[in-house]
Amino acid sequence: MTYARLGVGMVGYSFMGAVHAHAWNTAPRFFTLPLHPELTLLAGRNAEAVTAAAARFGFAETTTDWRTMLTRDDVDLVDVCTPGDTHAEIAIAALEAGKHVLCEKPLANSVAEAEAMAAAAASAAEHGVRAMVGFTYRRVPAIQLARQLVAEGALGQIRHVRADYLQDWLSDPSAPLSWRLDKSKAGSGALGDIGAHVIDLAQFITGEQITAVTGMLDTFVAERPIAASAAGLSATAGEGMGPVTVDDSAAFLARLSGGGNGVFTATRFAQGRKNAIRIEINGSRGSLAFDFEDMNVLHVYDAEEVAERAGFRRIVVTEPGHPFVAAWWPPGHGLGYEHGFTHQAVDLVTALAEGSQPTPSFADGLAVQRVLDAVERSAATGTWLAVSGTGQAATDPSTRKEVHSPA
Amino acid sequence: MTYARLGVGMVGYSFMGAVHAHAWNTAPRFFTLPLHPELTLLAGRNAEAVTAAAARFGFAETTTDWRTMLTRDDVDLVDVCTPGDTHAEIAIAALEAGKHVLCEKPLANSVAEAEAMAAAAASAAEHGVRAMVGFTYRRVPAIQLARQLVAEGALGQIRHVRADYLQDWLSDPSAPLSWRLDKSKAGSGALGDIGAHVIDLAQFITGEQITAVTGMLDTFVAERPIAASAAGLSATAGEGMGPVTVDDSAAFLARLSGGGNGVFTATRFAQGRKNAIRIEINGSRGSLAFDFEDMNVLHVYDAEEVAERAGFRRIVVTEPGHPFVAAWWPPGHGLGYEHGFTHQAVDLVTALAEGSQPTPSFADGLAVQRVLDAVERSAATGTWLAVSGTGQAATDPSTRKEVHSPA
Amino acid sequence: MTYARLGVGMVGYSFMGAVHAHAWNTAPRFFTLPLHPELTLLAGRNAEAVTAAAARFGFAETTTDWRTMLTRDDVDLVDVCTPGDTHAEIAIAALEAGKHVLCEKPLANSVAEAEAMAAAAASAAEHGVRAMVGFTYRRVPAIQLARQLVAEGALGQIRHVRADYLQDWLSDPSAPLSWRLDKSKAGSGALGDIGAHVIDLAQFITGEQITAVTGMLDTFVAERPIAASAAGLSATAGEGMGPVTVDDSAAFLARLSGGGNGVFTATRFAQGRKNAIRIEINGSRGSLAFDFEDMNVLHVYDAEEVAERAGFRRIVVTEPGHPFVAAWWPPGHGLGYEHGFTHQAVDLVTALAEGSQPTPSFADGLAVQRVLDAVERSAATGTWLAVSGTGQAATDPSTRKEVHSPA
Amino acid sequence: MTYARLGVGMVGYSFMGAVHAHAWNTAPRFFTLPLHPELTLLAGRNAEAVTAAAARFGFAETTTDWRTMLTRDDVDLVDVCTPGDTHAEIAIAALEAGKHVLCEKPLANSVAEAEAMAAAAASAAEHGVRAMVGFTYRRVPAIQLARQLVAEGALGQIRHVRADYLQDWLSDPSAPLSWRLDKSKAGSGALGDIGAHVIDLAQFITGEQITAVTGMLDTFVAERPIAASAAGLSATAGEGMGPVTVDDSAAFLARLSGGGNGVFTATRFAQGRKNAIRIEINGSRGSLAFDFEDMNVLHVYDAEEVAERAGFRRIVVTEPGHPFVAAWWPPGHGLGYEHGFTHQAVDLVTALAEGSQPTPSFADGLAVQRVLDAVERSAATGTWLAVSGTGQAATDPSTRKEVHSPA
Repeated sequence: MTYARLGVGMVGYSFMGAVHAHAWNTAPRFFTLPLHPELTLLAGRNAEAVTAAAARFGFAETTTDWRTMLTRDDVDLVDVCTPGDTHAEIAIAALEAGKHVLCEKPLANSVAEAEAMAAAAASAAEHGVRAMVGFTYRRVPAIQLARQLVAEGALGQIRHVRADYLQDWLSDPSAPLSWRLDKSKAGSGALGDIGAHVIDLAQFITGEQITAVTGMLDTFVAERPIAASAAGLSATAGEGMGPVTVDDSAAFLARLSGGGNGVFTATRFAQGRKNAIRIEINGSRGSLAFDFEDMNVLHVYDAEEVAERAGFRRIVVTEPGHPFVAAWWPPGHGLGYEHGFTHQAVDLVTALAEGSQPTPSFADGLAVQRVLDAVERSAATGTWLAVSGTGQAATDPSTRKEVHSPA
Repeated sequence: MTYARLGVGMVGYSFMGAVHAHAWNTAPRFFTLPLHPELTLLAGRNAEAVTAAAARFGFAETTTDWRTMLTRDDVDLVDVCTPGDTHAEIAIAALEAGKHVLCEKPLANSVAEAEAMAAAAASAAEHGVRAMVGFTYRRVPAIQLARQLVAEGALGQIRHVRADYLQDWLSDPSAPLSWRLDKSKAGSGALGDIGAHVIDLAQFITGEQITAVTGMLDTFVAERPIAASAAGLSATAGEGMGPVTVDDSAAFLARLSGGGNGVFTATRFAQGRKNAIRIEINGSRGSLAFDFEDMNVLHVYDAEEVAERAGFRRIVVTEPGHPFVAAWWPPGHGLGYEHGFTHQAVDLVTALAEGSQPTPSFADGLAVQRVLDAVERSAATGTWLAVSGTGQAATDPSTRKEVHSPA
Repeated sequence: MTYARLGVGMVGYSFMGAVHAHAWNTAPRFFTLPLHPELTLLAGRNAEAVTAAAARFGFAETTTDWRTMLTRDDVDLVDVCTPGDTHAEIAIAALEAGKHVLCEKPLANSVAEAEAMAAAAASAAEHGVRAMVGFTYRRVPAIQLARQLVAEGALGQIRHVRADYLQDWLSDPSAPLSWRLDKSKAGSGALGDIGAHVIDLAQFITGEQITAVTGMLDTFVAERPIAASAAGLSATAGEGMGPVTVDDSAAFLARLSGGGNGVFTATRFAQGRKNAIRIEINGSRGSLAFDFEDMNVLHVYDAEEVAERAGFRRIVVTEPGHPFVAAWWPPGHGLGYEHGFTHQAVDLVTALAEGSQPTPSFADGLAVQRVLDAVERSAATGTWLAVSGTGQAATDPSTRKEVHSPA
Repeated sequence: MTYARLGVGMVGYSFMGAVHAHAWNTAPRFFTLPLHPELTLLAGRNAEAVTAAAARFGFAETTTDWRTMLTRDDVDLVDVCTPGDTHAEIAIAALEAGKHVLCEKPLANSVAEAEAMAAAAASAAEHGVRAMVGFTYRRVPAIQLARQLVAEGALGQIRHVRADYLQDWLSDPSAPLSWRLDKSKAGSGALGDIGAHVIDLAQFITGEQITAVTGMLDTFVAERPIAASAAGLSATAGEGMGPVTVDDSAAFLARLSGGGNGVFTATRFAQGRKNAIRIEINGSRGSLAFDFEDMNVLHVYDAEEVAERAGFRRIVVTEPGHPFVAAWWPPGHGLGYEHGFTHQAVDLVTALAEGSQPTPSFADGLAVQRVLDAVERSAATGTWLAVSGTGQAATDPSTRKEVHSPA
């Protein structure tokens, strides 16, 4: 099968749909791709809205039934940009139909769904059909550089990961209910929506697994006004308030497979923090720090430098030798949020042309899902829990004393 | 009893002794004090060293037996600057002898000791004899301003406290053993030495209590070289290595008495972070952030401002109207680490002259000790534990769902 | 003339061509435009290269003679992305042919050329044909917000503008010669290439004119290796080195029309600064500060706040109410360098549809050119010079004493 | 002559007097000094005030006539902390009386005075009597480190110095007149008061001289209210307003002796900037940046690092190996404004004991004075002027083109 073109069918067209479509449009203009992505088909339930979105983003056709694309020969890849409760159904059906799949994160709303998806991906891979999950922040150049540095050993043995994902859009108790606050649709709240990103980033950058956790979930505002537009649809029309059934904030302590520890926070109640993804990693040889509010910069500390000259180095990650950057602008002309999606498209297309497994795979997505699940269950029991699939013994993992002999 | 002068007897003369002595010397030069502190007597075990230290800092006399000062009429206050295992004995004896006490933190090495000290302080207070514990970071002007803002309601209801105390001086596994790594002397490691500070700061700024915790302790380097100077004294001379019996890092999740939550880290293994005390507090109306590496600055966010004009305000806390600042320099001429100690001396002397209780009291020190204890025990059991004395039920405190009605 | 579509002919296809083409492609996907831009024709001298570029960016046709587009009915706008020495010829011809023009900055290589272009633009405007110059940094949202704040009076009377544009790509003396170092092609060096941007930004944000200057130009590396690729083409092949005929750095003091002053620097020799555009403006009521290395942020100080609560506010300019932002992502999901070009395309298309004058106009470009010229001449004479067209008397403008009565 | 003690006589006791006295008291407590400073005599015109100040700071005696100290055998050094118009008289008299002198900056109010002082210092030096001028910011540890790095060649050839000293205390036009706004007392305004510091720092760190300048002075508020307390003393009592006879802001372009250039600003009208001393130096091999608002930090860029790993290194200048730091606290426990004065006292006492010339010398102070003078005259004429004493030809220094052959 030669791929002169790559027909893309997309399901969903709101925030994630827009940024994915922009990536598909932009990737071939700045990168030399082995296949040419074409926006073949856009699926959505509302015929009028899906038609408008397709016109805006350049899709050739539309459908109100995503299953249509399973039988279209000109659709090679299904890009799943819907809420989490539909990921498993769509992605598994697509893989079984022989379509490559790019699925937004979190992979699913439960471990069971994610396991089924990972199994489907494994089966499909035997036939050269590939699946990828959209943890897009991995492809911010500064994050790629962070991964490179850790892989080169620049940090030595990892001792600490501290990672926060801070937003504030729910701080106001009069902010209305939405599907994101409904557990049946969203699976969880801050935990799965944004916590999933920092879990994946921590595992990606360190190359380690989170093996055990103890978590804490809070719902600060337990009832919210039902939006006027939604009220007409509600069984309880007239009452005006509805329950929030997910967490507003999540935090957890973690064990890492390499012997270090982690401290994680995800919240939508950090007033003044709009999309602050903050990661600091401390190892035996050095440290690194990143804040998405200053996304073109990575701070790196090398403990082997002379003490009087050592300090966190502020690397502006816009040099041509930095990952993905040569395709763009001269040094110092920074990139934005959406570039990670374009880079994701580039790597996915390249892997498909090469017949290799794109990353993060559905197995990587499942690994994150298992951490989310362990956090949620540990918060309910108040105890540490091993993360399934990591080989961590279920016995008490909260304290640890280990001999690291001097190097 | 009229106090024309305040005779100060100090026990200990290394790092803490130096900065305390400097504060006693400096306070009357920049502040108008109701009593004049005089450096009357310095106690230490090594006669030669204590004599040299006394000469350097201006103490009139020395002794190798701290008990001497209990019977000296010209000693009004005993300033305890020794390791934690001696705090209880010295402080209680001094209070019983009718001497005011300033005791370095953490108050003690165990809750039992701290309770005895708090009880002694309560008894002494009935006779106008006062006790204070030296959580000096409270008196950094930016921290004082933070407390004022929270007390005024600028943050509304507190949702999150994130507090880290990061150092790196033990990252190198060839750093030698010291008394600070010996549980019998130091009580704990990073937890009590530096974690105690951020626990106190969190409680001071918010005005709330930490009511329950689940913690995680690590000892990354379990054996260290016995220092050459110490080897001669060691029963195991020649073996060269000795055990580290305290934690290298501590982290814990917490419940706050006002319904919010907390995430805390204390570590001596954060490469490149020398003395980074970082606190961010998010409330329903605003947020504040502080980093001791930039100690003259407080960042404050007011969520009631118009969204397009809102942002964290970088307040340079050097205006004459800021706490303690008018005594020093013009705006922008920043203060350093030691000024907190001078301010502590000022407030202590003022409280003594007024006959009021200086803060933080031994009861405040005990409250911190109980949190340290709960963290340590929770790390051993892997479960959440209530902090004694806070009224928190011992039943599982890890999840919470509460209705905060819209304001 | 109804504009269902806007046929775009572009001349040039390297750095500026790429980012302009991307903007034309992107603008209609995120903004609702009154006209639909179509990439009709791409002109360049090398047939092979221009064909490849057209394929990459989606131009329908190519030509090796830009004059072709003057007679094409389906080209409504000519987008000039060539070096400065060709701007006047192309832009004037296009305007005379009834084509709208978007011309990259600096407007021209001399005041004479710029005057001719501004005159052509004025004539064309009488027939509804419009011209715009591409000072794209004006449309960074944080810069737009800065302009809004000054226009609202948030800074009061402007006292100081300090503006630096810092790069470092010529610091290495072995960096080869290029057309940008050849005065006949580029007009000037750092002065016109990057200094022009900060001059325009200063005038745009303040709404004032630079009326007099005294400048300083330096060429630190006066000879550079002729690039291997260029050597074959060179009359002096074999000699290996050629002269730099432009400035490496420029700095100047300035008078502003409102009574304040300015200090400007543009350099390609600031090691470690890649594309640092730094502007700080101090007025009687407040200040603002911007750094393009952190381009989604504006720092604003309001002097009317209580001293103890005042501070520079770090506004993350990603709120939906901020200029251009609602079309993009949620708060905190920052934009990059290229977004200014997309916003420029949006405003240009809107102005064309409305029949209004887009800004910055060629007259604005001429105003910048006159400042560049005065800086260059003042550096040659060592004296202050009035900027032509500003009404500034040629008499000595270096000192000033003025009574501002207390408000 | 053996110096068991060093008797200090101080003239003046307000802001500078307080910080000098504190330094004399503090230096021997933290540093091992070869001579012991004793606060012997404090001089001031108001008997009551000088007595109170002496009591506060620990001076043994007071006088209302500074000449008294010229004949006192127990006064070895005269510390001049008065306004600039009295520096020459006091310092010269003291030197002639065989007293060492520490004189606050700027050295004098005119070049003529400064020349006389430098001559007196040269004569005195022949007899082992030493003079030093108090450019205290030189002894901020981060500035010392900056000097070390430049001296080691870490920056290579200096191309650019940009230095700003920004304050805002005169922005409010209702701020009253004071002696600092009276040219007969203060010599100049922002130029001499704060501009002198950045001139000295630039020359100190680079080890180069400013050889030519063109300057710009502004007085934004030409009349101010006469303070109520001053009104009674005024010949024009009742009129209420008086003239400001100095500059509110100064800026200048400069030539450096090593071939680089400089851009300087000093202003009291930068709203929100309290005491921001900002210096950035770019050389052929690297750069450094400093901001006094974050005074314990130096940012250093090494251009010889691999591009993808290079970045400004944020050195927290609190390591024991950093200048002066070992005497103080552990790493990360930052110093404040006053520590520079203590370090100044330490170095002065050491030089006196060694019989060597302390720096900055009066010759260094004179060099700064000549730059101040050239700025002021150039602002009056609107032309570039050579700085006297630097060997710079008076011919036009505004443009320069020089061949630096590739290394």
